[in-house]
Amino acid sequence: MYLADIGNSNIKIWRDGEVDIFPIHSFSPNQILDRVFYISSNPNFSKQLHNFPNWKDVSYLFHANTQYRTLGIDRIVAIDEVESGIVVDMGTAVTIDIVRNFQHLGGYILLGKKASFETFQNKTPHLNIADRKLHQIDTLPLFSEDAIYSGFFHSIANFVIGLKERYKIEEVLITGGDGEELSKVVKNSKFRRWLLFEKMEKRIRKII
Amino acid sequence: MYLADIGNSNIKIWRDGEVDIFPIHSFSPNQILDRVFYISSNPNFSKQLHNFPNWKDVSYLFHANTQYRTLGIDRIVAIDEVESGIVVDMGTAVTIDIVRNFQHLGGYILLGKKASFETFQNKTPHLNIADRKLHQIDTLPLFSEDAIYSGFFHSIANFVIGLKERYKIEEVLITGGDGEELSKVVKNSKFRRWLLFEKMEKRIRKII
Repeated sequence: MYLADIGNSNIKIWRDGEVDIFPIHSFSPNQILDRVFYISSNPNFSKQLHNFPNWKDVSYLFHANTQYRTLGIDRIVAIDEVESGIVVDMGTAVTIDIVRNFQHLGGYILLGKKASFETFQNKTPHLNIADRKLHQIDTLPLFSEDAIYSGFFHSIANFVIGLKERYKIEEVLITGGDGEELSKVVKNSKFRRWLLFEKMEKRIRKII
Repeated sequence: MYLADIGNSNIKIWRDGEVDIFPIHSFSPNQILDRVFYISSNPNFSKQLHNFPNWKDVSYLFHANTQYRTLGIDRIVAIDEVESGIVVDMGTAVTIDIVRNFQHLGGYILLGKKASFETFQNKTPHLNIADRKLHQIDTLPLFSEDAIYSGFFHSIANFVIGLKERYKIEEVLITGGDGEELSKVVKNSKFRRWLLFEKMEKRIRKII
């Protein structure tokens, strides 16, 4: 069984707990002949999948109790079965969703690390931002490179901590490519690299 | 008397409390014949100013008690004479500086609103981000446009509030083009649009 999470930049393919990531423009659905259960936040790519009967859209299995319109399927899956928690996906964009008593209360979208650092790098080519070490959250940067690198993570960490207090929520669940680093500066958070695939697998096991 | 704050994108010219902003590439120093006291974080532009004796670099008047290397002159001026405070400049970049007992403890650099929103706009051209209304900080966005717009300001606001608590600092001083909006979601903060010019004027009055 294959699972796929289709975004605008990449497609992530899960098989038996192993995940491969392909740039979307270099991926063709006929590369997989087996059954693929997918969710997609990329309507253009999804269109062509109707011609491949082994690709099955499973977004109908997920539903969020929310008043947020246009909540992406990836975010709906990420908060699936969460009773109370703040769910942070550190991907191309950073999404932050707040759930209390199985109600999705709303959420935020911030720029992801790659796009943010690329913009700085273009403006200040002499700075070497990418390879910095993340500061502890109670240590202030004393170099511009650190000020940018740790600033990205510390601002999000403080945001999440502030939301926890405001909404009286204990659990913080973090996923996405840059999630492991964020989890180091958000105390008591849980990092689950393949959160979406775990949730997809759980639901799909019930129907097959 | 003219004052000038020279950045990489713009030059701001102050005269008797009135400020004009010019794109740096379309500005020539010979447009002003009167005396100009300036600070510059744009070394390329500064070079040509040596040929204009009416332009006087006043950065030597300012000094920060800090271990932060490469702290820009604009940030040094912004924290001038601050005893204890968090100083936020919401410009092309967002700089956040922490001062306690006249000691600059360190700081952060985040991407500014314009660059951040432009990146989102390029990736999701169907979204109309720019003209949103800023949510109260205790109201969660329920649309993607709001999630981006308010997310930018709320994440910075929570970051600043977290830093205030961590470093036991009361005063928050905000300046820069997008500073007025931030000040609406940081309780008890002070917004001073022309903070740098106020500080420059004060120091210069003492020497002329």
